[in-house]
Amino acid sequence: MRNPQLNGDGRLQHLLTIEGLPREVLVHILDTAASFIGVTEREVKKVPLLRGKSVFNLFFEASTRTRTTFEIAAKRLSADVINLNIAVSSSTKGETLLDTVDNLSAMYADMFVVRHSSSGAAHLIASHVASHVHVINAGDGRHAHPTQGLLDIYTIRHYKKDFTQLSVAIVGDVLHSRVARSLIHALTTLGAPDVRVIGPKTLLPTGVEQLGLPSAQEFFKSYGLTPAKLALAKPDAIVMHPGPMNRGVEIDSSVADGPHSVILPQVTFGIAVRMAVMSILAGN
Amino acid sequence: MRNPQLNGDGRLQHLLTIEGLPREVLVHILDTAASFIGVTEREVKKVPLLRGKSVFNLFFEASTRTRTTFEIAAKRLSADVINLNIAVSSSTKGETLLDTVDNLSAMYADMFVVRHSSSGAAHLIASHVASHVHVINAGDGRHAHPTQGLLDIYTIRHYKKDFTQLSVAIVGDVLHSRVARSLIHALTTLGAPDVRVIGPKTLLPTGVEQLGLPSAQEFFKSYGLTPAKLALAKPDAIVMHPGPMNRGVEIDSSVADGPHSVILPQVTFGIAVRMAVMSILAGN
Amino acid sequence: MRNPQLNGDGRLQHLLTIEGLPREVLVHILDTAASFIGVTEREVKKVPLLRGKSVFNLFFEASTRTRTTFEIAAKRLSADVINLNIAVSSSTKGETLLDTVDNLSAMYADMFVVRHSSSGAAHLIASHVASHVHVINAGDGRHAHPTQGLLDIYTIRHYKKDFTQLSVAIVGDVLHSRVARSLIHALTTLGAPDVRVIGPKTLLPTGVEQLGLPSAQEFFKSYGLTPAKLALAKPDAIVMHPGPMNRGVEIDSSVADGPHSVILPQVTFGIAVRMAVMSILAGN
Repeated sequence: MRNPQLNGDGRLQHLLTIEGLPREVLVHILDTAASFIGVTEREVKKVPLLRGKSVFNLFFEASTRTRTTFEIAAKRLSADVINLNIAVSSSTKGETLLDTVDNLSAMYADMFVVRHSSSGAAHLIASHVASHVHVINAGDGRHAHPTQGLLDIYTIRHYKKDFTQLSVAIVGDVLHSRVARSLIHALTTLGAPDVRVIGPKTLLPTGVEQLGLPSAQEFFKSYGLTPAKLALAKPDAIVMHPGPMNRGVEIDSSVADGPHSVILPQVTFGIAVRMAVMSILAGN
Repeated sequence: MRNPQLNGDGRLQHLLTIEGLPREVLVHILDTAASFIGVTEREVKKVPLLRGKSVFNLFFEASTRTRTTFEIAAKRLSADVINLNIAVSSSTKGETLLDTVDNLSAMYADMFVVRHSSSGAAHLIASHVASHVHVINAGDGRHAHPTQGLLDIYTIRHYKKDFTQLSVAIVGDVLHSRVARSLIHALTTLGAPDVRVIGPKTLLPTGVEQLGLPSAQEFFKSYGLTPAKLALAKPDAIVMHPGPMNRGVEIDSSVADGPHSVILPQVTFGIAVRMAVMSILAGN
Repeated sequence: MRNPQLNGDGRLQHLLTIEGLPREVLVHILDTAASFIGVTEREVKKVPLLRGKSVFNLFFEASTRTRTTFEIAAKRLSADVINLNIAVSSSTKGETLLDTVDNLSAMYADMFVVRHSSSGAAHLIASHVASHVHVINAGDGRHAHPTQGLLDIYTIRHYKKDFTQLSVAIVGDVLHSRVARSLIHALTTLGAPDVRVIGPKTLLPTGVEQLGLPSAQEFFKSYGLTPAKLALAKPDAIVMHPGPMNRGVEIDSSVADGPHSVILPQVTFGIAVRMAVMSILAGN
């Protein structure tokens, strides 16, 4: 079966999940993102790549933070951005998801950024829209959150350069985490040899062995990241978090704000990564 | 009494209702809309006609779909758009409708797009604002929804060319429908000889005979549009719906998605019609 | 202690409160605002001073009116504006205020416009952000609302020219009013010799004498402004109100809409004042 994210030429048509994306596509996104870092640092932080394009933030599940990152990225590409919080609007009038999408497409939408509580929602929309419309999955149920996974690997590449020597530990509520799932696929594709999933047994994904991981780790009674636990990592380890942070539960403040933390650079890189995805899709 | 929608030169100052609008004004809007279809199809979908103008979407009643169409239309004309959901804001502090409007006008608003649950709200606002401010009624109570009526006749003209040979059946909850009311006025003005209103007796408008209709039709026990009922229409009949569709209640899915349906083109034409209304008002 | 609003060169870095702002800074804001009045009156109401800058309206407390004034001002300066209603979003996920601010800053925010129900919130944020980020207090608890105070003195200067001959009466719920507090500081700094606070005893600020006022006035059983009370003022007195007006309680409609009222010009001047503050901050 052809990858539903790629068009006939093997180029990115939609970004739905990192699973199954060729290594070259991932690297192209990361390289393009690197070129946008300069844009976000200069005086006038805009490029005209999406001028006249209409980007719809289609949020069936509220997420101010994620919506904001896409809104900023789209505006810096000079797109027109329309924010739609669908939870409280037309779906209450009994309209179906695909009718809503058809209607917005008929307004000459160019791109949908979709957040939905149901796994597969972005795929469903992508399989339905006309060929000139592009879909970005901004989180669907427990399934995938590919731009978060991409910004994670952008951050790792920035600080570590080489994936083939890495040991990566993903700690916490991995079972419910679409972020972890997307990151694991990205790391595997880029050749990270040692990816560990750490958390209480009840929160580990079922069938974790089938995800191609070398091993699932012992369970932590408490999986909060403290200075004592971090001391067991390599001296140049970096600490990442997708936000929002639950300080004192998931992570100790001295770690979150400490010298190993690259949590805020992740956010900065996330804007560039989303600009990269949008500009690549619009160009394909 | 002078038509409150027209200025001293007989040109459109506000768009409040289709009732009483001269035929030439309607045709001018439709012709202008046709010129914008090209804009929405080209690579950069923007024209600078409203650059530097401030358009306020003043929604006292929530409607994501309608607000979105006006927001897109205004942004494609390069206007600055401010979305105001007044239901949850200053009116709760006891301010009157006209004080709210006065305040926004004092911020150098150029155009108000008004949605309100009370019939006459847009008229009230139009009668109150300074002469450089234009008001578009985006639906007031059960009274009128003129841009929806305009996009309906745009769609009919696109597919049928000639209004004078048409039989039009309006089916459903006509009593509560400002859309039906606006469409009936438009069709009458443009010379459609046969407009039928079909629905359960309790849902027909009172005084329907006084609206200038040739006849009110028999009542349908069930007014859902099915393939069997559609088979009774002319072979080249078109099927329209203002959205959101209540599939299986108002309309059968095989009809909504079938070859007679022009429901999605209606949406596309709706953007061009709203761009036309805004650009005509701003130019007058 | 250095004024946290001024940078090392004594120029405005943040606008947090009028208290302690040098007279020259106030006058510079008013003069800059005057230059923007022309912009808001011309055909294309935009200047490119903030092009490519990202302004975040960070509203932890809902206020459509105030948010709108800042949104309009920022868009007329060609900024990208991101509206965030934080009350209903990430703070519910347990993230701290400063983590939210850090995250938004990491998206290369240039300016935060902050409304918060807690006094001191804008100061806290200003003390935390990087030096290229500017903070404008759009109302914090009962503490301050400096742009409202600035537009009030802009209005007074426009109609009265000279502050040194003025008698100003501030009437109403002064205890809970951040607006009154900001205005009192501005008037004092600009040399108004006679500022009176009038309201029921229970609503007067505690320690009103320490605010440098010449005297606190007798209490009014009813503090609504009526034509009879206005007749006791000078014949050329002007009547101001920060809005939203509670007609019939705070002010008689014949006064609000009468010849002494400059309530709507206040709103208009408010846009120019906010443009002035934003452009001055962005230039420093």
